[in-house]
Amino acid sequence: MERIKIYGSAISGNCLKVKWTADLLGITYDWIETDILKGETRTETFLALSPAGQIPIVVLEDGRVLEQSCAIMLYLAEQSGSNLVPSDPFEKATMISWLFWEQNFHESSIAVRRFRKRFARLSDDDIDPTLLTRGNASLSLMENHLAAQDYFGGTRLGLPDIALVAYTRMAGEGGYALADYPAVQAWIARVEAALGIPSYTEEQA
Amino acid sequence: MERIKIYGSAISGNCLKVKWTADLLGITYDWIETDILKGETRTETFLALSPAGQIPIVVLEDGRVLEQSCAIMLYLAEQSGSNLVPSDPFEKATMISWLFWEQNFHESSIAVRRFRKRFARLSDDDIDPTLLTRGNASLSLMENHLAAQDYFGGTRLGLPDIALVAYTRMAGEGGYALADYPAVQAWIARVEAALGIPSYTEEQA
Repeated sequence: MERIKIYGSAISGNCLKVKWTADLLGITYDWIETDILKGETRTETFLALSPAGQIPIVVLEDGRVLEQSCAIMLYLAEQSGSNLVPSDPFEKATMISWLFWEQNFHESSIAVRRFRKRFARLSDDDIDPTLLTRGNASLSLMENHLAAQDYFGGTRLGLPDIALVAYTRMAGEGGYALADYPAVQAWIARVEAALGIPSYTEEQA
Repeated sequence: MERIKIYGSAISGNCLKVKWTADLLGITYDWIETDILKGETRTETFLALSPAGQIPIVVLEDGRVLEQSCAIMLYLAEQSGSNLVPSDPFEKATMISWLFWEQNFHESSIAVRRFRKRFARLSDDDIDPTLLTRGNASLSLMENHLAAQDYFGGTRLGLPDIALVAYTRMAGEGGYALADYPAVQAWIARVEAALGIPSYTEEQA
């Protein structure tokens, strides 16, 4: 595949998803570190690339821009001819449904609560209480699913694992007790090993 | 395509998306009205079908279950061989990125605030204030996009229009002032006409 640019931030799970997918697929890229906290997604230059003002984005060699982490992951996997996108229509739809669940239910609670605690430095009382409830519901669903299988798609690493691990491994920063979810914890370690990345605790240490 | 079952609710934009997509594609289905407010997605029978306890779900003739509104829309469109899924990889990724944006940014603010006001009957003071900000940011982005073109994908109705119109047309119930977004209002009418559905006001009257 052509060389791409990834605008992203190392503190953003959504951006790391795209980085890990590119690394796994052997795609070459330039990483343009973009600091949300300094407003670097709100500059005129950035908004000209992507009016939504969110990272990650990918810029292709011809200048065209792709947005939304999971849409980019799907694009990179399909363009690479990788078997990360199942050829069976039902299996493919199931895989994609995990990506939507991640963005709609999991990220919108776990990633948001982590951001409000760690970066916006809000106290628990100032954070919408439904974020804790929904985040724990997400982790419970994952726990039940992973009690029966090693990866979301079954026996091997897939895009849902990459998408879901990004913020799940950081969930402690959002005030979620990962120790209550042993199958999830074991899966995090498994996915980190499969991706060849250090465990989040080590990375932060 | 085979006859499918759609478990959904007529008050849920996520469910209507799937219904409208099936109707547009000429897919035959049985609609199983499922009342979230009465806990019908939390029964043992429903959770056996779908542990996430959310609607819509689609049950295929062989009993297999598909979840997540946008993943179902993509599956139905691809299985029907419809041109709602572009063959060009970049166009397809762009189309899918709107679906993810809808689920992550738009639905998580506009649909959630509408639910909390209309169904949970919370007062504005008891609703996370970021929902109003993010919802209006969603509508502004749509307004700018639709000022230049009739549909999200350009000149003809696509899956992003179906996905986005579902909760946008109900945004008034969430306390958003659609009158501030004239291009969005014109687009809602255009999409409703293209789908052959009555305008939301009429439907509610």
